[in-house]
This record gives sequence, C-alpha cells and structure tokens, in this order.
Amino acid sequence: MPERTQVAIVGAGPAGLLLSHLLAEAGISSIVIDSRTREQIETTIRAGILEQGTVEVLHETGASDRVLTVGDRHDGIYLGFEGELHHIDFTSLIGRNVWLYPQHEVLIDLIAARLKGGQDLRFGVTAQRVEDAESARPKVIATDADGAELTIEADGVVGADGSRSVVRQAIVGSPGGYFREYPFAWFGILCEAPPSADELIYSNSPDGFALISQRSPTVQRMYFQCDPEADPDALSEAQIWDELQRRTPGTELNEGRIFQRDVLKFRSFVAYEMRKGRAVIVGDAAHTVPPTGAKGMNLAVADVVLLDRAIRALLENDERPLDAFSETAMRRVWKAQQFSWWMTSMLHTMPEASDFDRRRQVAELRTVTDSRAGMTYLAEAYTGWPLPR
Amino acid sequence: MPERTQVAIVGAGPAGLLLSHLLAEAGISSIVIDSRTREQIETTIRAGILEQGTVEVLHETGASDRVLTVGDRHDGIYLGFEGELHHIDFTSLIGRNVWLYPQHEVLIDLIAARLKGGQDLRFGVTAQRVEDAESARPKVIATDADGAELTIEADGVVGADGSRSVVRQAIVGSPGGYFREYPFAWFGILCEAPPSADELIYSNSPDGFALISQRSPTVQRMYFQCDPEADPDALSEAQIWDELQRRTPGTELNEGRIFQRDVLKFRSFVAYEMRKGRAVIVGDAAHTVPPTGAKGMNLAVADVVLLDRAIRALLENDERPLDAFSETAMRRVWKAQQFSWWMTSMLHTMPEASDFDRRRQVAELRTVTDSRAGMTYLAEAYTGWPLPR
Repeated sequence: MPERTQVAIVGAGPAGLLLSHLLAEAGISSIVIDSRTREQIETTIRAGILEQGTVEVLHETGASDRVLTVGDRHDGIYLGFEGELHHIDFTSLIGRNVWLYPQHEVLIDLIAARLKGGQDLRFGVTAQRVEDAESARPKVIATDADGAELTIEADGVVGADGSRSVVRQAIVGSPGGYFREYPFAWFGILCEAPPSADELIYSNSPDGFALISQRSPTVQRMYFQCDPEADPDALSEAQIWDELQRRTPGTELNEGRIFQRDVLKFRSFVAYEMRKGRAVIVGDAAHTVPPTGAKGMNLAVADVVLLDRAIRALLENDERPLDAFSETAMRRVWKAQQFSWWMTSMLHTMPEASDFDRRRQVAELRTVTDSRAGMTYLAEAYTGWPLPR
Repeated sequence: MPERTQVAIVGAGPAGLLLSHLLAEAGISSIVIDSRTREQIETTIRAGILEQGTVEVLHETGASDRVLTVGDRHDGIYLGFEGELHHIDFTSLIGRNVWLYPQHEVLIDLIAARLKGGQDLRFGVTAQRVEDAESARPKVIATDADGAELTIEADGVVGADGSRSVVRQAIVGSPGGYFREYPFAWFGILCEAPPSADELIYSNSPDGFALISQRSPTVQRMYFQCDPEADPDALSEAQIWDELQRRTPGTELNEGRIFQRDVLKFRSFVAYEMRKGRAVIVGDAAHTVPPTGAKGMNLAVADVVLLDRAIRALLENDERPLDAFSETAMRRVWKAQQFSWWMTSMLHTMPEASDFDRRRQVAELRTVTDSRAGMTYLAEAYTGWPLPR
C-alpha cells in the first residue's frame, strides 16, 4: 500500500530540506527521505560561503535565523599572487556581500525548522528507484533501515540526493551529463588556531593554489592544491604547514593542531536535463562544481527557489514554469560552472602548464585586480546573480 | 668606416618608423633600415584596428592625419554566439573607442612623414647582426641590396624587425622567450562586396570562429578558423562563402568576388627580455600575439612611446627609464597576451574541446554580455589601457 504525498523529496541536504520548507509555506505537503542519519547530516563538514541571495532566502523564510547572528558577513575576498594580497571589496564595488556560515549549521537549522513545522522527515531511508516519472503519479521506491520496502506516490518527485543521485537515473540515465575532470584535488585541514586573515584568501603561487578560510575564532579551515591520489595521512603536521606557508607568500599563517584532514577530489558535471515529466533533480544531483568559487550550495538554493515557484504554479494548473524549469535553471548552472572553472583555472597550477601559461595566469590576475570592472565582474559572480523573484 | 647616428633602428614597420618620428621631434637622429622595398611595406595587408591611444599618438604627433579622415571610428564590436549578436558598446561603456584604419595605410602615412622630415630611411638594407650591445657604442652590421656590408654605430640599437628579429638574437638568443602555439589558424579573404555589418563581428559557432571585418564601402576582410596546414587555394569561392555563412548564424553576409586569400598561422611569444645594455627590441620583435583582439600593432606603438621617453631621458643622463624599460613594457605585453588568449579561447572551437568545454564557453560569452562590468572589462582591454604619459 503506497504512501501518498504531494511532493516526494529524496535527500535531506540543503536543497531537499529548503524545498520542503518553501512548499510547506504554500500548504504543499511533502515527505523527505535520506539514507543518512540525522547525526551524519549535521556533522559532515562541507562548504561555508553563502551568497547574499542564499542568506536572504534562508532568513526571510525562517529557514535559518542563526545565519545572521552566528554567521560572519564577509565584505570581500583576497586574491594573492606574486607575493601580494589584492582585496576585492564586494561591498564597495556592488553593495552586496557573502556570509561565512558552514553548510552543516544550515542543515542543523533547517532540520530543526522542518521538525518544528511537523515535516514528515525520514532518516535512514534509502531511495532505490523512481517509477512512472512521466505519469501524473510518479513513485519513489525505497528501503528503510531494516530493509523493508516502502513506496511513496506523489504528484511529483524531486531528487535532491547529491552527486550519486538515484533520481537522476530516471531522468537522464548514467552518466547522463557533461563532465570535466581536473588534474588536482584539495588537501583540506581543520586546525585549532586563530584566524590568519579576516576574509578568505585565494592564493596563486608557483607552488600551487591555497585557500585560507575561517570557521570560528579558534578553528580554521585551509586547503592546498594536491595530487588527486594524495593520501591525507602521508604528511606530517609540519609538512602540511610548510605546504600552506609556501603557497601564501607574504602572509604569515597562524599554525595550530590539525584535527581533521581530507582530500577533496573535484570535477564539473551538468546533467543533460533536470526534469523528465514529473521527476526533477536539483543541486548536486543535477550538477557538481569544483569548490573554487563556493557555488555548490548556493546553486542548490537557486534551483529550489525556482522549483518551488514551478510546483506552486503546477498546483494551480499552470504547467509552463515546470516545463521551462530545466532550461531556466541551466542558465544559472552554466554561468556558475563557468565561474567555478574560471576561478579554478586562474588560481591553480596546471601540471602541464608551460612558463607562458604561468605568466599569462598572473597577467590575468593582474588585469582583473587592476580594473574596477574586472573586480566587479568577479564580485557579481561570487556574491551571486539575482535569484528569481 | 662605420656610419654614425644616435639611434640605429632596424625595421621600417609601425614601431621603427614611429620611433624615428618621435625621436626626431626631440632632435634625436636615427637611421632606419629595412630589408624590404618601400612598395612591399606599403602594400602588405595586415591588421586594421587601432586603439584610441594609438590614434591619439599618430594624430597628435603628426605621424598620420589621415587616420581621422580616412579611418572609420568604431564604437564597439559584436560578439556572436548561439545565433545572436550582442553589441559591446565601448563608447557608452567607457567613453573610448577604436578606429578601423589598415596598418599599410599607417605605414604609407609614416613613410611620407619621415621622408618629408628628412629621415635617413634605407630600404633593401638587411641587418645581419648586432655587435657590442652592452657597450656604449653598439653597432648594427648590415648588407645593402647589392650585398655590400655597412656598419652603423650608435648610442643605442633598436630592433623593430618583426617576429624573425635579428636584433633579438643579440638580446636573448634563440628562441629566447615564452611560447604558446594554437591548434588552428585563420583563413583570411579580401572580397569585393558591401559591408555585412557596421562594426566587426566576432562570431563563435559550433563550426568554429569567424571574424567579419571591413576595409572600405566596396572591399571587405573576413576570416574563419581553419587547420594550420590548410591550403588557401584548396577551397572554391562557394566553399569559402559556405564556411563563413555557417559560422555567422543569424547574419546574412554580403558575398562578392574573392581577390585575395591567405592562411594566418598564429602563436603567442614573449621574449625573456626586451633589452640588453644599449640594444632594445620592440613590437613583434619582442612579442607576438594571436590576432584575436587586434593587439599587435597597438602593442608596438605602446612599446615605442615608452622607449622614446627612455631614450630622451638617457640623453639627459638619466638611465633609470631605460633600465626599467623591459619590466615596464612587459606589464602591458603580458596583459595584452592574456587578453588575446582570452578572446581566442572564448571564441574559437578547440579541436579537443568536449561538450562540457563548448557549453562552458557559451556560458562565458553569456556571462560577459549579461553584465555591464563584464562588457566594460572587455572594452577596457580592447580599446587599450592608458599609454604612458
């Protein structure tokens, strides 16, 4: 006997939870399932930079109030090259900014808000497949933590189930999209130290890229470009600090005990389509960006804002926004892919780069930072293009 | 018995001729030699877009008055992609613009002005080598059209002798610089037809790049991306028009008899140094840019304006500007290399491009044209960064 809801949402990440929140505001019911436990979701360290539009959505809809009180507003970023830091001052350039507020904190807020709102939210439930995507009654077939099968029948199915999306299978198959791989990864650490800078430093150096970011007054997050096959446990703490210090010439990093380390592989992916009939994918299920530029979660939120409108319209018998959803969302997705690729290629050292390429890269950083227009172009993308209203 | 002058200039292209003109204004003597005949120089078809700063220098110094009367002011360019033209309006964005005025017309003006000014200007004289570059009396050893050797001894030697520069050998040896090759070339034509557009169209298409430019009300210059080994005579006129029309979707090109065709290979090159002692290289002798972005002649003019000042200072016993010449000039050179690479990579189809790359490229064109800042960033570079004053 299938369960019934209006929208079946697979995945309790930022996209799935925010969608259930926005739909509930309009009186639309949903069931959210996720294979992970609540604790896993709330403790996995992910990205931390929110676009201004993302912050506005989270705050204005009551999805997260803490973002404005616990989060830190950043008025810009630093681009480091040739041993000097160049500040890109978003606030003075375009009157917009970003917020440092880690993704798992967003998830803690969203889960609390959804549970308070009476949301049907099921952890440890794993989607197996989507059936009848092109009918008016698509279904999610799932298994619970005990292996028992359940079927959720809905007016629509939304896959917010990340880069290994099950829902994506029903829409575009496998691999089902456009790919790009990168010949490097990020070696990331969490350490106990005071901040080394007031805002993020994106540092280009002859030894490769480094990103200096913050978590709190006592905990910092830093990354440096590494081989994708690097073993996170192969380096001593002293070696890690040496790599970071060498890649941030002109900046003295505050060192401290390293209590977490990981290697983040990264790639670009865009699904051929984000919709098939009544099944839709959003966020990482539909696209993956390299982390340079911090677009991942923000893109998921933009998808969801657009989809929420399309679903509301559908329930008022206007199918046009849903029909146009994939094409409309893709415009932003490809611009974000382009921005993420640009930041990646401008800042990282490509293994095959010639001396010409290396000098051209520095000239690009110089051309951007010499020009108010160049910095504005970067600031517009980094703080996020306007969300659909 | 060596001849004596203050500055020995090798090459009667735009750089060499303009330098002799600027030096003469300050009462500094020079001898200009070139292996080509005057007719060869005045009839070889080359680039045709002059930055605003280049036009100002040519006009204000009396090097060319025709640029303002015969040349055509262009207030912008068109970027074509996805079947639509997007106008980048330089004048409204930054109040600057460019001029369409072919390089051989500049040369006709400069040669006339130099001869009128009594310049010692020798055609058919081929530089063989530079000697004593690091002394206070460097020499150019050359042969005239009859094979007789002559020696020009000077306070300084300037190589304005193009991409196969002899003077460069004395400064950085061979190859002596940073290189980048491109896996394509331009198939260029001159044809008898009315203009197809009022300003240049840079067109990105799935079939490759095309550039639609103008020469006069009855003669047009057009290019399309081709294999670097392409034989210019292998295509019929109908095939050439088919290639051009397919690459400019949405624009109907006016066709006409094709009376010249050539294949332009292109590459990026920057010499390691532009100076050694009293020997200096400028323009194509020091750097080559791909033609996308039209920076070649403009960069030569910028080098010459800077070098003129350094030489004037030297003759007043201030060696600092000449000591700083290479580093100062290189900043602009690398920015121009970056811009030319950017325009090239954004507009051409790379043979190895994946579907992801192709869509990212269109997204880049869209991001630039969606944004006033993006268009301004492009306009600043295209119209030229300010010249040294």
